[in-house]
Amino acid sequence: MSVNSFGRMFRFTTWGESHGPAIGAVVDGCPPGLPLSEADIQPWLDLRKPGTSKFTTQRREADEVRILSGVFDGRTTGTPISLMIENTDQRSKDYSDVAKAYRPGHADYAYDAKYGFRDYRGGGRSSARETASRVAAGAVARAVIPDVDIFAYVSAIGGDAIDYANFDAAQIGQNPFFCPDAEAATRWEKLVDDARREGSSLGAIVECVASGVPAGWGAPLYAKLDSELAAAMMSINAVKGVEIGDGFAAASLRGEQNADPMRPGPDGPTFLANHAGGIAGGIATGQPIKLRVAFKPTSSILIPVETVTREGAASDIITKGRHDPCVGIRGVPVVEAMMALVLADQKLLHRAQCGE
Amino acid sequence: MSVNSFGRMFRFTTWGESHGPAIGAVVDGCPPGLPLSEADIQPWLDLRKPGTSKFTTQRREADEVRILSGVFDGRTTGTPISLMIENTDQRSKDYSDVAKAYRPGHADYAYDAKYGFRDYRGGGRSSARETASRVAAGAVARAVIPDVDIFAYVSAIGGDAIDYANFDAAQIGQNPFFCPDAEAATRWEKLVDDARREGSSLGAIVECVASGVPAGWGAPLYAKLDSELAAAMMSINAVKGVEIGDGFAAASLRGEQNADPMRPGPDGPTFLANHAGGIAGGIATGQPIKLRVAFKPTSSILIPVETVTREGAASDIITKGRHDPCVGIRGVPVVEAMMALVLADQKLLHRAQCGE
Amino acid sequence: MSVNSFGRMFRFTTWGESHGPAIGAVVDGCPPGLPLSEADIQPWLDLRKPGTSKFTTQRREADEVRILSGVFDGRTTGTPISLMIENTDQRSKDYSDVAKAYRPGHADYAYDAKYGFRDYRGGGRSSARETASRVAAGAVARAVIPDVDIFAYVSAIGGDAIDYANFDAAQIGQNPFFCPDAEAATRWEKLVDDARREGSSLGAIVECVASGVPAGWGAPLYAKLDSELAAAMMSINAVKGVEIGDGFAAASLRGEQNADPMRPGPDGPTFLANHAGGIAGGIATGQPIKLRVAFKPTSSILIPVETVTREGAASDIITKGRHDPCVGIRGVPVVEAMMALVLADQKLLHRAQCGE
Amino acid sequence: MSVNSFGRMFRFTTWGESHGPAIGAVVDGCPPGLPLSEADIQPWLDLRKPGTSKFTTQRREADEVRILSGVFDGRTTGTPISLMIENTDQRSKDYSDVAKAYRPGHADYAYDAKYGFRDYRGGGRSSARETASRVAAGAVARAVIPDVDIFAYVSAIGGDAIDYANFDAAQIGQNPFFCPDAEAATRWEKLVDDARREGSSLGAIVECVASGVPAGWGAPLYAKLDSELAAAMMSINAVKGVEIGDGFAAASLRGEQNADPMRPGPDGPTFLANHAGGIAGGIATGQPIKLRVAFKPTSSILIPVETVTREGAASDIITKGRHDPCVGIRGVPVVEAMMALVLADQKLLHRAQCGE
Repeated sequence: MSVNSFGRMFRFTTWGESHGPAIGAVVDGCPPGLPLSEADIQPWLDLRKPGTSKFTTQRREADEVRILSGVFDGRTTGTPISLMIENTDQRSKDYSDVAKAYRPGHADYAYDAKYGFRDYRGGGRSSARETASRVAAGAVARAVIPDVDIFAYVSAIGGDAIDYANFDAAQIGQNPFFCPDAEAATRWEKLVDDARREGSSLGAIVECVASGVPAGWGAPLYAKLDSELAAAMMSINAVKGVEIGDGFAAASLRGEQNADPMRPGPDGPTFLANHAGGIAGGIATGQPIKLRVAFKPTSSILIPVETVTREGAASDIITKGRHDPCVGIRGVPVVEAMMALVLADQKLLHRAQCGE
Repeated sequence: MSVNSFGRMFRFTTWGESHGPAIGAVVDGCPPGLPLSEADIQPWLDLRKPGTSKFTTQRREADEVRILSGVFDGRTTGTPISLMIENTDQRSKDYSDVAKAYRPGHADYAYDAKYGFRDYRGGGRSSARETASRVAAGAVARAVIPDVDIFAYVSAIGGDAIDYANFDAAQIGQNPFFCPDAEAATRWEKLVDDARREGSSLGAIVECVASGVPAGWGAPLYAKLDSELAAAMMSINAVKGVEIGDGFAAASLRGEQNADPMRPGPDGPTFLANHAGGIAGGIATGQPIKLRVAFKPTSSILIPVETVTREGAASDIITKGRHDPCVGIRGVPVVEAMMALVLADQKLLHRAQCGE
Repeated sequence: MSVNSFGRMFRFTTWGESHGPAIGAVVDGCPPGLPLSEADIQPWLDLRKPGTSKFTTQRREADEVRILSGVFDGRTTGTPISLMIENTDQRSKDYSDVAKAYRPGHADYAYDAKYGFRDYRGGGRSSARETASRVAAGAVARAVIPDVDIFAYVSAIGGDAIDYANFDAAQIGQNPFFCPDAEAATRWEKLVDDARREGSSLGAIVECVASGVPAGWGAPLYAKLDSELAAAMMSINAVKGVEIGDGFAAASLRGEQNADPMRPGPDGPTFLANHAGGIAGGIATGQPIKLRVAFKPTSSILIPVETVTREGAASDIITKGRHDPCVGIRGVPVVEAMMALVLADQKLLHRAQCGE
Repeated sequence: MSVNSFGRMFRFTTWGESHGPAIGAVVDGCPPGLPLSEADIQPWLDLRKPGTSKFTTQRREADEVRILSGVFDGRTTGTPISLMIENTDQRSKDYSDVAKAYRPGHADYAYDAKYGFRDYRGGGRSSARETASRVAAGAVARAVIPDVDIFAYVSAIGGDAIDYANFDAAQIGQNPFFCPDAEAATRWEKLVDDARREGSSLGAIVECVASGVPAGWGAPLYAKLDSELAAAMMSINAVKGVEIGDGFAAASLRGEQNADPMRPGPDGPTFLANHAGGIAGGIATGQPIKLRVAFKPTSSILIPVETVTREGAASDIITKGRHDPCVGIRGVPVVEAMMALVLADQKLLHRAQCGE
């Protein structure tokens, strides 16, 4: 059961603090016989590596993953797969102010209330670096669902949205923003750079699409595919909203506008629309799964904000150290990883109950 | 583990088909010694009883709950609490068309793909009537968290939103829409009535607030309070989006606009804002928890929509039978129930790990 | 997670007090499309029905099961299956002494220590009647594993063991003791009758064999087949010991005596022995699974035993009411049911991870 | 859920193959604020270190544990605790014969049937070295239950039992057998030495006592304390039987002989006997918990046993390499660790549901 594991059949547990010696994940329930090596996982970590561009954190990390168990002769054995990434670049001295006062918007105050004390070094366990473990685990999940294609991208930063008329998937890897609209990417250079220099931060929206999910995956109620995806995405640091298909826009539509009509097709019905975003009644319809995730702006900013110290006195806080002006950008590989992890789990659950 | 249970320590399993003999829930993990009787549960069910107004379904139901176990001498025993509601009003004959063709937007097609066949009577398990079980279970949860106050309301129907300047909580129980804005309630009478007569349907947005949640509840990562709430709300029939605090709006804010500053206060810090919606880093901050849920418009409409039959031929479908023109309205007690269920679970989880 | 559910994929939750209005079980994770009706379940309940012979409890019960959900057109739908058995024969008045004092060997004292009070009527939740729910759930499990043959029998009562040289499986249903040795059955008539008239009680050993379990079911460590079976059997009321294969006897053997040699065979290896009892390293070997379960003598006896009242004063207690002189006998269908439930779960787990 | 984790609230997941680079465990759900360091864990590992005497395996191992997460400033943070032990002494070359044929009694054949192939190096995941992870996790568990005293000892080897009249707990650490009877320890020197030189192996019985467990821990049905203990012990490599209190002997007793009478006492009742072994109805009675575990003789012996190769041909197998003539001896710290792990979990579960 525990509270730091996710998934039911394909289950992973992450561990590690941002400024501890290492972070990692144990992936359990992986089918045996799948090809897996560090080379299958590393590229996904490199996608998220800080220092790639000036727009993300200035920490220099190798983020090199090791597989410590669960693989033999290049194939998964079916036993737990332990992944570890050593922390090679840590600067605790940037956090001296933080030990004394609570960063507004951070989990500091809540942590103290829960545990009585907190590990103030960096973000402790709620740090964005923990997501490296998830990205590594997500790479293992992809091996379970090789026929599913997953990609995510940023569709808006700080309220500035892409133009879907300019959508070009090939652009996603061509700029530092995972942006599919070249013009928006150009605007965002200035937008994010300005925010960084001002010591401010920006929110973002990330969209994710998964194609090739067979109709039938998902369970009708609590292990509903959209329910699990919502939990998975909301568990990502800084996420404050999740929607599937038309999402909140559906609330303004009428039934006949929101319906996804079907026509006969060669291999089963052809859908004429996908307002549902690929999921109906908690089960995949076979259409691409589409979801959107809202990232709030980073709470670690250089503009003073009123707060209190641990003893209760008033204080201003400026969070020094190195931070992302827009964590949503780095959220893209994490969103993809969580999509993969949920789908791998759902595939096994479906197989357990319905065979094949 | 199973796939039809929700919660980790305070756990409930629902069962029952919309047109079967009964529906129910088994609630497990309830602390012993709490006062509980049918009289504590029935009012919550009555809130959602169809036929209350002409704006909801015309099914006449007693929706009378029985407690079959787990209570002795008016107090919970700590053993599983079995709740049952018998289905007294079923009309299967309205569904003859449905057996042959897939209702677009319904789970019919997906169900068939998963299970090979489906129980076509009404909504089967994905029907809104299943939510009666949840509301009953939610009433038990409230007994676990007596100091938490939960209320929900509809903030928009079909794109027509309330005016927060007119917000009056006392209005919520005074109209058929759980609407806190008397003027909006008046507009919605016509809006919903028109939709019903046209055989169409409308989406809605429901907001829920929980006050009195102590700072500290929640776990930092996967049993994150917001993560669990997202899963819980997304599991409600017809929900397509969930957001906490500023939600998707936060994506357009800058860090200094989204921060929740703190000042020293008599019993711990006083927060000057609540953009986070009461949850930071997965843990309750002590501020009111605020979330918003998007309901799509009902797929059961009388306007013909293209679909296919089970054999793959083209067909038009009109879903006869009795339906809600706006399921979001009936979602209000369900949203409250899910909020209670998650918070009860989180309270016990917190107590397990951190004592008190 | 909860604490009153068992199983991971094929999961059941039982509910109900011995003297409440009903008892039942919710079975979740059952594959869809399996034939199931009350007629498939009732016979297994009848096997355990009290009043069948003078050697078991004198309570007259219909023990009639109803399926309230999860079945349509005679086949499982894949949704939770709710089973209910109404309690038609309850005599609370026999328990007036019990409310005041603790029955030694019963859970009374422990219950009070845990919950602060207890439902003194009959055995409450720890009563043998709860096992009716398990037997019903076990019948559903059998539908999942139709190729597995399971049978159990009593191999000793009160220290008087069967003679394996006289073993005749056909005898098991021919006497009130589920005894495969006709001579032992005759001796046991007197043994048990004497104990009943003396107001005493006897322990028993039950053995269970499951054939047709394919090699491969089970997971190597914590969901080990023998581990799960041990938990399942130990959870049965009055069980104090479980062993697999040679069990405790293996502790006295040497390695070469305990080994199960293999020879080549037409469809894979032929085993020359089965000391392991069908399970090695937590995984089924394909040989019959053999286990033995020790039942202690009933604590509800008519011979006075020293105890204390709730207030702490000395007292003698005689447990009036109607009781089994040997609960082990009635344990036979329960042991079979638990075997079926664990194997069904293991089959689905194996299918989830390894396909086919 | 997963299949390689144990526990519900205090949950641990082990990983690592005997001949992989490392083994480890992730412990989740540990309360925050408990003192913990490597120095708290290492002694328990040293107790089980091979090479301590000539009677156990001749592998030389440092078995040095590192804490990689979950601890800050010498106290647990409440976040997952990752423990790692690097494998420094591996000799794969001893296992060349093993790759080709199945070791009778080992999991080899079953593994192949399940996974299609196996990691033949040493025992893979079912090896006794995996238990080092458990012992490390058990040390963390002890921090959760500081008032509980746990000790285990060997009570019989190869059928040669201790004399309880000679029982002296102080002897347990004074001989290589964890034997509380000095005379038996002397006999066992010869017994085990002879077996080792003959290339044979011996079974053993280990007993474990836990004192200071408050009445009330445990849940009445499936998370029953004895049920969880049975699962925990049966999951240990080579265990084939578990019993609580009188265990199998209770099957031969009469009710009045098996009862545990109570008298009034200063702090609640005084028990006059403990046939139940400290657990009644799945809940701790406050009396010492007593259980017995049966270890079968090692399957890795030097006496040829008939087997088959992977291709199905007849073969004789001699398992070279270094092995325990009696794995039960090394089972003692593991049994203690599992007792601690289950009790820690039960403590948190009880606290979750019943407070304090």
